[in-house]
Amino acid sequence: MTPQAPARTYRRLSVEERRSQLLDAALSLFAHRAPEDVSLDDVAEAAGVSRPLVYRYFPGGKQQLYEAALRSAAEALRGCFDEPREGPPLPRLARALDRYLAFVDEHDAGFSALLQGGSVVETSRTTAIVDGVRRAAAEHIYRHLGVDDPGPRLRMTVRMWITAVEAASLMWLDEEKQPPAGELRDWLVDQFLAVLSVTAARDAQAAAVVADLAAADG
Amino acid sequence: MTPQAPARTYRRLSVEERRSQLLDAALSLFAHRAPEDVSLDDVAEAAGVSRPLVYRYFPGGKQQLYEAALRSAAEALRGCFDEPREGPPLPRLARALDRYLAFVDEHDAGFSALLQGGSVVETSRTTAIVDGVRRAAAEHIYRHLGVDDPGPRLRMTVRMWITAVEAASLMWLDEEKQPPAGELRDWLVDQFLAVLSVTAARDAQAAAVVADLAAADG
Repeated sequence: MTPQAPARTYRRLSVEERRSQLLDAALSLFAHRAPEDVSLDDVAEAAGVSRPLVYRYFPGGKQQLYEAALRSAAEALRGCFDEPREGPPLPRLARALDRYLAFVDEHDAGFSALLQGGSVVETSRTTAIVDGVRRAAAEHIYRHLGVDDPGPRLRMTVRMWITAVEAASLMWLDEEKQPPAGELRDWLVDQFLAVLSVTAARDAQAAAVVADLAAADG
Repeated sequence: MTPQAPARTYRRLSVEERRSQLLDAALSLFAHRAPEDVSLDDVAEAAGVSRPLVYRYFPGGKQQLYEAALRSAAEALRGCFDEPREGPPLPRLARALDRYLAFVDEHDAGFSALLQGGSVVETSRTTAIVDGVRRAAAEHIYRHLGVDDPGPRLRMTVRMWITAVEAASLMWLDEEKQPPAGELRDWLVDQFLAVLSVTAARDAQAAAVVADLAAADG
């Protein structure tokens, strides 16, 4: 909270600060390598601490550290979706996508490893964390669309689009981040409106949402 | 090949027949329960054979049997995509989707377990089998669209749609197979055209494909 905090190395970290320093180090390692290629020694080295200290904070070892890092990444991802309910909804979606793509860009290989699963440390718990982020994304979208009780077709449409966005992110990383993030974002927003419009042709709730979007945009 | 084959119980099965009988039994068990809830005893019982016989065919035990069943399901799924290159392309896509949804319908819980991963027997090999099916689906689509060398935007569009179809299938199973398969199929075809049209606004190859589709439909 002080304008200029003293450099970290010159003071003792609190438990919370130390924990978050270790998670940051772990996340940035998982971001560049698959979880199975990251050792606790690597994390200790990256954080500039001893291996026993890492174990003191994460007695469950790598699996616990990985899950904690995943939870912390999931929280950061949820943070991307936070967007004030002001102005027309589609630009809000665009801004949330900007933050999401910046996250994907920054976390890179770790993001792929996370979503593609198949990792040695994949468990039903890690799957649940990722699914939780997907659900949170869908809830945010309903809220911004002003829908309290989404019906099955609207839900299916939104979840399909979210899955498609994930697939696009993974391919984007594979394609050396082409097209540029801004273009990808516009493309994804246009796809959102397009699939919603297809659903609107067979669902009254989606039709009302599309009409609202058109009115807000006009 | 004979019009009326003698009942199976009255003759000795060939190695190939026995193997395929065991795979059928395993697939139908995996279709209704998660892989971790299926034992080799269950498979032996369902096929009406002894446990040692199952082991003779699948000495690697459950993991090997699961992978073989998965491969056999993957082959059946690829079969769904086989469609003659005759008539306008969108109805071809609709027919392939009909077969795909019939497969999803029939294999139900096994299909979910397969795609949702997180199973105890999930490995990089099983992930590769599923990815192979996705790739095959994309190749079929390019071929039917008359595209020899799909560029990055067209590829991204097609892969996103395939992922969205998978998500839709899983939700469809969760939603007690609502809407009816025929409606879901039309909805998915309309979505395909919609996302392709969005891409057409920023990609010449996709624009040519959409123009061809409109001409074929007209």
